[in-house]
Amino acid sequence: HIFPICALNTINFVLKLHYWVFFLTTLLIFQAEIDVAVQLLLKLKTDYKHLTGQDYKAGCPPPENVVNQDNGAATDGIDEEDNVDPWNVSTSNAKGVDYDKLIVRFGSSKIETELVDRIEKVTGQKPHRFLRRGIFFSHRDMHQVLDAYEKNKSFYLYTGRGPSSEAMHVGHLIPFIFTKWLQDVFDIPLVIQLTDDEKYLWKDLAIEECHRFAVENAKDIIACGFDVNKTFIFSDFDYMGSSPEFYRNVVKIQKHVTYNQVKGIFGFTDSDCIGKISFPAIQAAPSFSNSFPQIFGGRKDVQCLIPCAIDQDPYFRMTRDVAPRIGYPKPALLHSSFFPALQGAQTKMSASDANSSIFLTDTPKQIKNKINKHAFSGGKDTIEEHRKFGGNPDVDVSFMYLTFFLDDDEQLEKIKQDYSSGALLTGELKKILIETLQPMIAQHQERRKQVTEETVKQFMTPRPLNFKL
Amino acid sequence: HIFPICALNTINFVLKLHYWVFFLTTLLIFQAEIDVAVQLLLKLKTDYKHLTGQDYKAGCPPPENVVNQDNGAATDGIDEEDNVDPWNVSTSNAKGVDYDKLIVRFGSSKIETELVDRIEKVTGQKPHRFLRRGIFFSHRDMHQVLDAYEKNKSFYLYTGRGPSSEAMHVGHLIPFIFTKWLQDVFDIPLVIQLTDDEKYLWKDLAIEECHRFAVENAKDIIACGFDVNKTFIFSDFDYMGSSPEFYRNVVKIQKHVTYNQVKGIFGFTDSDCIGKISFPAIQAAPSFSNSFPQIFGGRKDVQCLIPCAIDQDPYFRMTRDVAPRIGYPKPALLHSSFFPALQGAQTKMSASDANSSIFLTDTPKQIKNKINKHAFSGGKDTIEEHRKFGGNPDVDVSFMYLTFFLDDDEQLEKIKQDYSSGALLTGELKKILIETLQPMIAQHQERRKQVTEETVKQFMTPRPLNFKL
Repeated sequence: HIFPICALNTINFVLKLHYWVFFLTTLLIFQAEIDVAVQLLLKLKTDYKHLTGQDYKAGCPPPENVVNQDNGAATDGIDEEDNVDPWNVSTSNAKGVDYDKLIVRFGSSKIETELVDRIEKVTGQKPHRFLRRGIFFSHRDMHQVLDAYEKNKSFYLYTGRGPSSEAMHVGHLIPFIFTKWLQDVFDIPLVIQLTDDEKYLWKDLAIEECHRFAVENAKDIIACGFDVNKTFIFSDFDYMGSSPEFYRNVVKIQKHVTYNQVKGIFGFTDSDCIGKISFPAIQAAPSFSNSFPQIFGGRKDVQCLIPCAIDQDPYFRMTRDVAPRIGYPKPALLHSSFFPALQGAQTKMSASDANSSIFLTDTPKQIKNKINKHAFSGGKDTIEEHRKFGGNPDVDVSFMYLTFFLDDDEQLEKIKQDYSSGALLTGELKKILIETLQPMIAQHQERRKQVTEETVKQFMTPRPLNFKL
Repeated sequence: HIFPICALNTINFVLKLHYWVFFLTTLLIFQAEIDVAVQLLLKLKTDYKHLTGQDYKAGCPPPENVVNQDNGAATDGIDEEDNVDPWNVSTSNAKGVDYDKLIVRFGSSKIETELVDRIEKVTGQKPHRFLRRGIFFSHRDMHQVLDAYEKNKSFYLYTGRGPSSEAMHVGHLIPFIFTKWLQDVFDIPLVIQLTDDEKYLWKDLAIEECHRFAVENAKDIIACGFDVNKTFIFSDFDYMGSSPEFYRNVVKIQKHVTYNQVKGIFGFTDSDCIGKISFPAIQAAPSFSNSFPQIFGGRKDVQCLIPCAIDQDPYFRMTRDVAPRIGYPKPALLHSSFFPALQGAQTKMSASDANSSIFLTDTPKQIKNKINKHAFSGGKDTIEEHRKFGGNPDVDVSFMYLTFFLDDDEQLEKIKQDYSSGALLTGELKKILIETLQPMIAQHQERRKQVTEETVKQFMTPRPLNFKL
């Protein structure tokens, strides 16, 4: 076939046109595919972060133990709202963190009525209100501790505090109030770690400041009424430098935990200092009795029970993972819920915000003003409405504080009923709290005043304690 | 224009053909571009690994101080053959590591004749053979130390050993022989760190074993003749647990070094235990005088001079980087070359291979047999050839050992000439070495025998030393 010239020109033009159409179409198809791939990648990265708590990095394998129940900090993303690790606790729920979900996530056990009853039976004492009211709500291996105790095999208590400032508030007392009760009813030795090294590593503070805070905090802790013959309080900066056995255990733990593991458990990043990365071993070491040869005479098999707020659990999940690998028993745990800020259970208490809680140095007037002014109310806007519909004790901070500090169960129940029905007004509820806290704080201040430098030195000197295992 | 049907069919066919040609061409172009990109990526990754010593990981930023002169272990890839870091030293060159290249890579300064002359002038003593012969070949800030010394501002010495076994060989003595000389000519205090914690972290050993090796090694170190009134020897496991000031400095350093940095400097990986990751701070801490308040009374400004084998330099590059940020002076350094294995300068000495070196416990007979049997010879295969062409002292291990231990420069030079000319046979050269080492080792053994447990305890007890700064 031979085409006329004009036809060839037309073909030429059509061909050129088609080239361009095809070229652009191809580009668009490619572009669309790239978009789809990018969307998929973003989705994968988001899912990865939810699962591991970390940003995805190509070529960096996920941490070794990314498993729900073994990995607190790393799995925070799964819950939409609650965020619980040793450095952050937050929730958007006015009732506070969902503790049942936390138990599932952390793989611990709920403290059921049965366990509370058993503690009562074993100790012959009425359970502390923190147990009766589920303020200590979760545990690990508590039945095992009681089994052994019933067979006359004793244990020791270990709790602690990060001394980030001189100012302690009532919430800081919760683990100590409960630990004192445990010490009394079980008649056992207690070690209290003040992690001044941790605070130096995490905060913009000098070593001397952190150490001074530790000693000041020790006075408030001592004022809780601990038995000096059964209690050893130590600053890490001091004790590490005076106990070769403690350092040996720290290094032993550090040998058995990889960077991948602490990255997974605590969410450390490559930009974190090596002090933070190795610190978890220092909080773990007091869980093993041979860290205190002056107390346990080199015995490494004395079981440890740790009462603490649940945000500290990641440290002890790690400790329990390491323990059998270095020939030590796993520490048992009792976990408390969080003490709410005056402004509500979903906000964080801050030692730097004097209005976020009742401090141990507050005057009766300050206590009164703070509660009246700042304590979040579950009451209604007007007296009429309140009388008609009643208040909500579940979100009312004054009522929450009373569950922590008012020991009389019947009185507490009556307050709850009256507040819910509207018979009790917010102002009246606050008055009850004020009258509960004022004498409590005043008594604490009185006891603290009696804590001399000599007493502090006594508590903080490594020495034998008075007990029999 | 109207086309005949057949023309339209043809256009249709041509169009279809063009579609396919165009589609395939487009694909091929894309494929080619992808190939080019992949090649570029691979090239980039290889370059990245050469520069940083690590595999490239997308999203993981490179370590903070990836700079040639500040980053020993990380830049090993650049040299084709020499590999020098605290855990590995290897080269394929029979003459040993190329030390001039190492100086450039590590960013240290060569010990020129001028510096050796200056040390002679300042101390009024003939420089040690290790200086005269370039065995200590590199330094950092030595001129600054001498400037201050001339102005009556003194300094202290710090060296150490990782006690991985009881068995020490003659090579292990090099830093101690030289440090003893420095202590004598400058009349200054000395601290010797035995990193039993490091050995526990790196080796499959129990803490007790590492600590026992530390004490055993201390005896050999003491046998070098150190002045007990000016020398403090410590095991990390012991001293950390007896000096709060030492631990404070360790944490201070750990706060100022990130994981990224130790990854870059030491090549740690995410699977390494957190003990290894934080250990460099423990080797760094003795560089600061207030780690030893019993010696320096809390002064933090006493300059430190560290004589060590150059493979330890990464620790002290890190230390020098941290020092000004925590308000301490940078330690100065004197670096030694490596002591060759009997089998040749390119093989590694191993404490577990009894034939790789002369051990401090060897009998005269063992010394003789080892040298005769295992010392790599630079001689020729037959006596005739050797007489005719001469031997090569540069690769001859017996001659190398003599440069370390034969103090007489003229005698050494004559041996070199005679061996090179062929006048001296390998057997004769070995005989000279045997006759040099036998009395040296015997005397060491005699001195070690006199080191009692009491003496060790004296050296290893934290206490004031006798000197004036």
